[in-house]
Amino acid sequence: MEYFDTDPVRLSGDKKSIIIIDQRRLPGELVTREITSAEDMYNAIKTLAVRGAPCIGIFAAYCVYVRAEHTPDGELDNELSGFAEYLNSSRPTAVNLSWALSQMRAVLDESRGLTPTQRREMLLKKAQQIHQSDIDTCEKIAEYGLRLIKENDGVITHCNAGALATSRLGTGLGPLLLAARRGIKLRPYVDETRPLLQGARLTAYELKRAGLEPTLICDNMAAYVMSRGLVNAVFIGADRIAANGDTANKIGSLSLAVNAKHFGVPFYVFAPRSTFDPKCKTGEDIPIELREGSEISTLHFERPVAPEGVRCLNPAFDVVPHELITAIVTEEGIHSVEG
Amino acid sequence: MEYFDTDPVRLSGDKKSIIIIDQRRLPGELVTREITSAEDMYNAIKTLAVRGAPCIGIFAAYCVYVRAEHTPDGELDNELSGFAEYLNSSRPTAVNLSWALSQMRAVLDESRGLTPTQRREMLLKKAQQIHQSDIDTCEKIAEYGLRLIKENDGVITHCNAGALATSRLGTGLGPLLLAARRGIKLRPYVDETRPLLQGARLTAYELKRAGLEPTLICDNMAAYVMSRGLVNAVFIGADRIAANGDTANKIGSLSLAVNAKHFGVPFYVFAPRSTFDPKCKTGEDIPIELREGSEISTLHFERPVAPEGVRCLNPAFDVVPHELITAIVTEEGIHSVEG
Repeated sequence: MEYFDTDPVRLSGDKKSIIIIDQRRLPGELVTREITSAEDMYNAIKTLAVRGAPCIGIFAAYCVYVRAEHTPDGELDNELSGFAEYLNSSRPTAVNLSWALSQMRAVLDESRGLTPTQRREMLLKKAQQIHQSDIDTCEKIAEYGLRLIKENDGVITHCNAGALATSRLGTGLGPLLLAARRGIKLRPYVDETRPLLQGARLTAYELKRAGLEPTLICDNMAAYVMSRGLVNAVFIGADRIAANGDTANKIGSLSLAVNAKHFGVPFYVFAPRSTFDPKCKTGEDIPIELREGSEISTLHFERPVAPEGVRCLNPAFDVVPHELITAIVTEEGIHSVEG
Repeated sequence: MEYFDTDPVRLSGDKKSIIIIDQRRLPGELVTREITSAEDMYNAIKTLAVRGAPCIGIFAAYCVYVRAEHTPDGELDNELSGFAEYLNSSRPTAVNLSWALSQMRAVLDESRGLTPTQRREMLLKKAQQIHQSDIDTCEKIAEYGLRLIKENDGVITHCNAGALATSRLGTGLGPLLLAARRGIKLRPYVDETRPLLQGARLTAYELKRAGLEPTLICDNMAAYVMSRGLVNAVFIGADRIAANGDTANKIGSLSLAVNAKHFGVPFYVFAPRSTFDPKCKTGEDIPIELREGSEISTLHFERPVAPEGVRCLNPAFDVVPHELITAIVTEEGIHSVEG
């Protein structure tokens, strides 16, 4: 891996647990944690220790396999199907979680006639395949994305759609990281991404490690930057894409898209094909997670910055309607959406 | 005063110093400080202990008077003219600072033939008049503003344009505080206003004290709230208004205005007539203050939340072009702008 000493999610040496980077501790500390129990797996997603739609999918797949390793032979079907349901309830918006879990469930179903050892091996293979496929997908997405910009362009990003959110190159950050690898100079602007500051904490960190020189701004400064002609494109990832192209992504994406349209800046979404959810016809069908208000009123979980007891509204995502999206970039190519 | 035990800015009992509410400590603590020296006055504005365009103007007027009290008779003209220039350099964007200082300078000039005691009295009277005039102006603005909304409307505000930023009712918050006084129910949405959180810290605090029930959101959630039809109007204050109506206000106002236009929400600016600067033809003539990047990268001055040494861009204001403003409300009435 180019930008980190370890993948955000990987199996331990004995394959009995999962090693994750605890993303809540970055950029201050690069801390890994070993996770084995169902509860710790659930909490890792819920508390955003593991985050980023594709990364959650990869993690969930490994979780099913690791739980299989700790489940008696005769209870595999019952236990794992209950576990998958439990893990799937940790966060509602990103489709990658349920997508990866349904892939693993399919392996369980298909392997019913085989020995428990063979079944566990098939689960491992599937999880590794999901992981490897994401690595390949990110490479392809980055290549397509790089065609959309040229040297010295200003690119604004929101939240974190880089190595920590996926594997290796990332989705929305892929073209920037690929540009860094090839020595192409860009001017990345990083939205800090309130309330949990994934942009300030993770994206600025990744871009700096990759040798790019990001400029950090508050979310409410994107319009200022666009109005001064500093930005040539907006690059974001996606948590779920409806059949009509409406895209759910980190809260603030909608505001960014509206501003991009107003200032004539192209707005691009980067995601693997598996992010499309044919069950959602439009964005209205995508469930939006509402999180604890204290994430807003208590700065970084530590210090109150609002009057005690103030009501907060804390949607974790919003939906960018397809009319505001210039194109969606997947491993299959650049798909025009707008209009 | 209705919402605070003390005005944000007032003279001490012996009229030899100024008592301010240190707004950096709210909402945790309501702390007042006594200020006498020129340096403390400069720093109070620079560090946002005293903030809000009209409040800075009132404070500056009292500052000139208090400095006159501490200046030997023969040095009044030299000393105070140098002091006014020094204080005027503390923050560049809000026109109220230079407006109030030029009012005080005019009194100095007009009173040249009088005794030093008479001159000091005239400076005191002028400062008190500027203060009283702001109180009256805010009342009128609030009355006009209340005509723009009806019971149960959702109103989104940005930064703090209430009692702490002015005197008594405030500008952008005036209609809401007046509604509270009259028992009219509204649904205020408060942008937290990064990086210095004036919305979370000050506006949510004022609205709660006034008996309203605000909902605090991150700046990047305004589009979400508008897209769900929860908001009937946007109310903001202003730091400087150009001759054509272009309005400089707290960073993030532009993004809010672009979103309001997109979602068909009327966008209103509230400010005293003195906020208009005829020397600025358009918003391009308004100087925009750039502040320290550490305000972004170090959360609430305490804890780093971005990688060390990351470059930050931190404009304190942006300019809303007049095409995005539905009307500007002053003490003289509601002035349509749009189109």
